[in-house]
Amino acid sequence: MTATSDFPSGPVLVIGSGLIGTSVGMALREHEVDVMLVDADPDNVELAVSRGAGRAFLDDTLPSLVVVAVPPVVAGDVVADALVRWPEAIVTDVTSVKSLLQRSVESAPGAERYVGGHPMAGSERSGPMAASAQLFEGRPWAVTPTGTTQPAALDAVVDLALHVGAVPIIMDAATHDRAVALVSHVPQVMSTLTAARLTEAEGNHLALAGPGLRDTTRIAGSDSALWLDILGTNAPDVRAVLQLVRADLDRVIDALGHDDTVLGDVLEAGRRGTALIPGKHGEQPDRLDVVHVQVADQPGELSRLMGDTGAAGVNIEDLRLDHDLGRPVGLAEIAVARGVGDTLVEALTARGWSAYR
Amino acid sequence: MTATSDFPSGPVLVIGSGLIGTSVGMALREHEVDVMLVDADPDNVELAVSRGAGRAFLDDTLPSLVVVAVPPVVAGDVVADALVRWPEAIVTDVTSVKSLLQRSVESAPGAERYVGGHPMAGSERSGPMAASAQLFEGRPWAVTPTGTTQPAALDAVVDLALHVGAVPIIMDAATHDRAVALVSHVPQVMSTLTAARLTEAEGNHLALAGPGLRDTTRIAGSDSALWLDILGTNAPDVRAVLQLVRADLDRVIDALGHDDTVLGDVLEAGRRGTALIPGKHGEQPDRLDVVHVQVADQPGELSRLMGDTGAAGVNIEDLRLDHDLGRPVGLAEIAVARGVGDTLVEALTARGWSAYR
Repeated sequence: MTATSDFPSGPVLVIGSGLIGTSVGMALREHEVDVMLVDADPDNVELAVSRGAGRAFLDDTLPSLVVVAVPPVVAGDVVADALVRWPEAIVTDVTSVKSLLQRSVESAPGAERYVGGHPMAGSERSGPMAASAQLFEGRPWAVTPTGTTQPAALDAVVDLALHVGAVPIIMDAATHDRAVALVSHVPQVMSTLTAARLTEAEGNHLALAGPGLRDTTRIAGSDSALWLDILGTNAPDVRAVLQLVRADLDRVIDALGHDDTVLGDVLEAGRRGTALIPGKHGEQPDRLDVVHVQVADQPGELSRLMGDTGAAGVNIEDLRLDHDLGRPVGLAEIAVARGVGDTLVEALTARGWSAYR
Repeated sequence: MTATSDFPSGPVLVIGSGLIGTSVGMALREHEVDVMLVDADPDNVELAVSRGAGRAFLDDTLPSLVVVAVPPVVAGDVVADALVRWPEAIVTDVTSVKSLLQRSVESAPGAERYVGGHPMAGSERSGPMAASAQLFEGRPWAVTPTGTTQPAALDAVVDLALHVGAVPIIMDAATHDRAVALVSHVPQVMSTLTAARLTEAEGNHLALAGPGLRDTTRIAGSDSALWLDILGTNAPDVRAVLQLVRADLDRVIDALGHDDTVLGDVLEAGRRGTALIPGKHGEQPDRLDVVHVQVADQPGELSRLMGDTGAAGVNIEDLRLDHDLGRPVGLAEIAVARGVGDTLVEALTARGWSAYR
């Protein structure tokens, strides 16, 4: 299993003491992991240390894992520098867009020790004072290995996600970026567009604000500079979805007040869409089969499982790990297209895995 | 003060035992108010009675207040029927759009006993089983009198809002409809458009869904038939706001990835918009002055206060009542344009009110 009980083999260095970096430190400290912190602004480090996120980084200490938690616009350089500076360390990052960073790193020395990561957690607030050891609890943490990623590097980043309480979900960088355009970046734009209209509210209009408005506009209060960066980095995927949104919006504007069929179709599509969102416990939608596989707590087991699944000709739609830290065996849940679950169980069983549906 | 301690003078009849009607009954029952329930579907009444929302309506009982909580498409007829059937009763409704209903009622006999109402509370769930006595706690409840409304009718509907724990906000029907287009109907459409895109999610895209997606799409799970009705009834006001949204969306699509100034402007407008939303305790935005006025617990006092404010040449932007039920004096908060607060305090003091800022 990937959640090796001796994770990590040495100190974890978190570069960047903002909301995410400080929260990673605080969550790892709950497992007594040795966490070191560094930030361009020493005040942020001091705050993060005071929140219990770790200790200030000492230049002569060698980290075994480096977590780059800096703004996306500088993350590529910081990752490349870390790979060179610490040639034994595994390096990951937490930025919201993965393909561009992946491409900038893949030709760098040590690229096989880098694995992209993206915790689907955050807050409309930012900075170390908004951090929480529980920020990642039960939240998806995308992990984006490539064909050349070292198994040990993948294991370490999956372990990191598990140790902070997240659910690691393994996918390639391009899939990740299309997915977040849909589930994160476009919702952010829609929330912003809704909230922007409020600036022209007359008189006491906003006195009627209810919880629906607060919910739909909460994330519009997020840091603009960060989102400018994220949206710019993922522009093609975001634009593709927004163009479909615009087509629907045009249909709604045209249909309002006289074509209930069109309006009803859009409203029903919205209802179907919400029903597809996995619940807090990550139920799979109906169109997928889920195969459960026991995975021993040994380095490289997860990579071997992914390899054996691929060799069976089965495409992994979703892979989650459920693992009590320190237990010798964990459970992987592999979601595959409807109808191929049994095929995968047979193939994995033939290769010695304990697999069932 | 309008929250007379002997409210109501007789039984309250709630017509329609859905989410809102049943919740009104449950909240009034906590004050031992005699509540009677009727619904086109007797099963709903049975469920509402079992939830503690009141007792089934008996044909020969005369209500003092009728709360029409039926779908908007039939609300006008039900209100008009109620005004004729119970010529002594005050009649209100809870539908989301007020002008059209107001116009359909104003020529009916007894129109002076009708006051429109709209609690800004709801749920993406519907029906009596989703009801709660706390549904309206601290929520705005718009009350929309006209120039010919009886003071006693306005008092009774304000009292109703106060008794269920809501904050009554008095405004005219046209202002209300423009306001809800902005703070409720357009956010609903935006949530729907965001959620509708999820129906085309590939593979494991939705596995990355985080709380931001859940918040922005929660209300898209609401009843489509109800929203078709609401959007259709308020089509011109909703369309006007959606056209501004579309203009912003076009700017975003065009700017993505190359014009950070335009994109940054939209993101900042979104941040400013969220900052304008009053908090849970209804703080006023900076551009308004708030005048506090003590109001005695006597029928007609609120109408007299509104009249005296109008006579002073001051336009009420927002009027809220803060009142512990049963106390002899309540506090009205009148929000007016910045700079005219002192004028209003002087004018009201001269007319014998205890007013201060």
